[in-house]
Amino acid sequence: MKDIVDMSRILIIHAHPDPRSLSSALKDVAVATLTAQGHEVRVSDLYAMGWKAVADSDDFKDHDPSARLHYAVASKESYLGGTQVPDVAAEQEKLLWAEGVILNFPLWWFGLPAILKGWVDRVYANGFAYGVGAHGGARWGDRYGEGTLAGRRAMLAVTMGGRAPHYGDRGVNGRLFEVLWPIQHGMLFYPGMEVLPPFALYQADRLDEARWIEAEAAYRVRLERFFTEAPLAFRPQNAGDYDEEQVLKPGLGGGKDGLMIHLG
Amino acid sequence: MKDIVDMSRILIIHAHPDPRSLSSALKDVAVATLTAQGHEVRVSDLYAMGWKAVADSDDFKDHDPSARLHYAVASKESYLGGTQVPDVAAEQEKLLWAEGVILNFPLWWFGLPAILKGWVDRVYANGFAYGVGAHGGARWGDRYGEGTLAGRRAMLAVTMGGRAPHYGDRGVNGRLFEVLWPIQHGMLFYPGMEVLPPFALYQADRLDEARWIEAEAAYRVRLERFFTEAPLAFRPQNAGDYDEEQVLKPGLGGGKDGLMIHLG
Repeated sequence: MKDIVDMSRILIIHAHPDPRSLSSALKDVAVATLTAQGHEVRVSDLYAMGWKAVADSDDFKDHDPSARLHYAVASKESYLGGTQVPDVAAEQEKLLWAEGVILNFPLWWFGLPAILKGWVDRVYANGFAYGVGAHGGARWGDRYGEGTLAGRRAMLAVTMGGRAPHYGDRGVNGRLFEVLWPIQHGMLFYPGMEVLPPFALYQADRLDEARWIEAEAAYRVRLERFFTEAPLAFRPQNAGDYDEEQVLKPGLGGGKDGLMIHLG
Repeated sequence: MKDIVDMSRILIIHAHPDPRSLSSALKDVAVATLTAQGHEVRVSDLYAMGWKAVADSDDFKDHDPSARLHYAVASKESYLGGTQVPDVAAEQEKLLWAEGVILNFPLWWFGLPAILKGWVDRVYANGFAYGVGAHGGARWGDRYGEGTLAGRRAMLAVTMGGRAPHYGDRGVNGRLFEVLWPIQHGMLFYPGMEVLPPFALYQADRLDEARWIEAEAAYRVRLERFFTEAPLAFRPQNAGDYDEEQVLKPGLGGGKDGLMIHLG
């Protein structure tokens, strides 16, 4: 039995329409493994919940339908005013509860399935995930390493049809690090979370029993190290590496020209 | 008056919940400008259409709800069998009709709004936008410059809250080229379209009248050059630059380490 001090709280956001899918099997592995370790686990199974994917005026109870909808403004008003719709508020509460967050999904068209993108679009309210801290002058908010979700760890568990070489350093799909940049850097690191290297399962459409056994074992190892593994070394925005325009200072980045410059 | 031979067909996919928004204004500029040039323009206004964003078993009339849903398999069966749901088939018909495609949207969390991501997830059927051509051995499909939508041009018209330097070569958000990679390379070039440089409007939340006049004029110029401007020089997958694993051959890419290596 694990010592009680090792117990942590983990939220899994899961987005696959079929509970018998590979992606859903990975979710089940995570629940079982983390629970066996003594962690407390909650799952937001977006398809099962019938999650509303589309951000629109229905998200704001007090919005006058005849008035112009400025989503970011309405989002801040309802967040600060405590008038958010219940599904959005509930997901924020889960994020605040959690010490670890796993996004579990199939990579569709090099990004999140729409239902999961819509979870981000709606749950990441203005004042909660962005618009936090001072904006203006040389500072542009508490973001990228700072923010509401600082102190938490996050990881992607992602399946894809493509082969590993297609996502390699010079693969035709673009290197996985760059393909996942908008998610890992833009959605997880932005509101403050540390981001672990992704667990990626290639050629998911052609996974036989032998590869599944191997993948499951590899995923268990990653899960067991969730709170000890080194996160990706994304540079915090406000720790001196970026200038007042939020541009990486000269001399940093090792002469590289791509997104790798943003790793310290 | 333009000569009739200059008339082309352009499809605008528009995704903003408010018709009075800046993004919607850009859509209106595109319709007016392109129409004045003599082009035929169609608009898929996803919010106005109540577009179904979430890909699920309801997309397949013949799917047995008790059976496992393998979305890609069901997609191919319904595409080839002519049993697709009408909204998906209608959008595919518009894409085949068009010679030019504009995706018009606000950048939300460094990606497409969920409703537009769900347009891609659902309309890009297996056999239509992927799973085209021979897969296996040294070849991996007709994609990245080849495919069903080859011969068409596409462009993003995108608004964002962030400032231009944040998206510059060393900006904290990541360079715009890399941020848009999953969309431009993964969703537009993949099924065969040539991709024009994006029309990007920064600090959209703080746009005053003077900047709007400037932006509108700049966008008109881009629209007037839609069929003559040079597209981004993405390397086609099957033209010799990639090896049989779809990895860029040694010596190509000018010693760069990021996604820029995929520009010829």
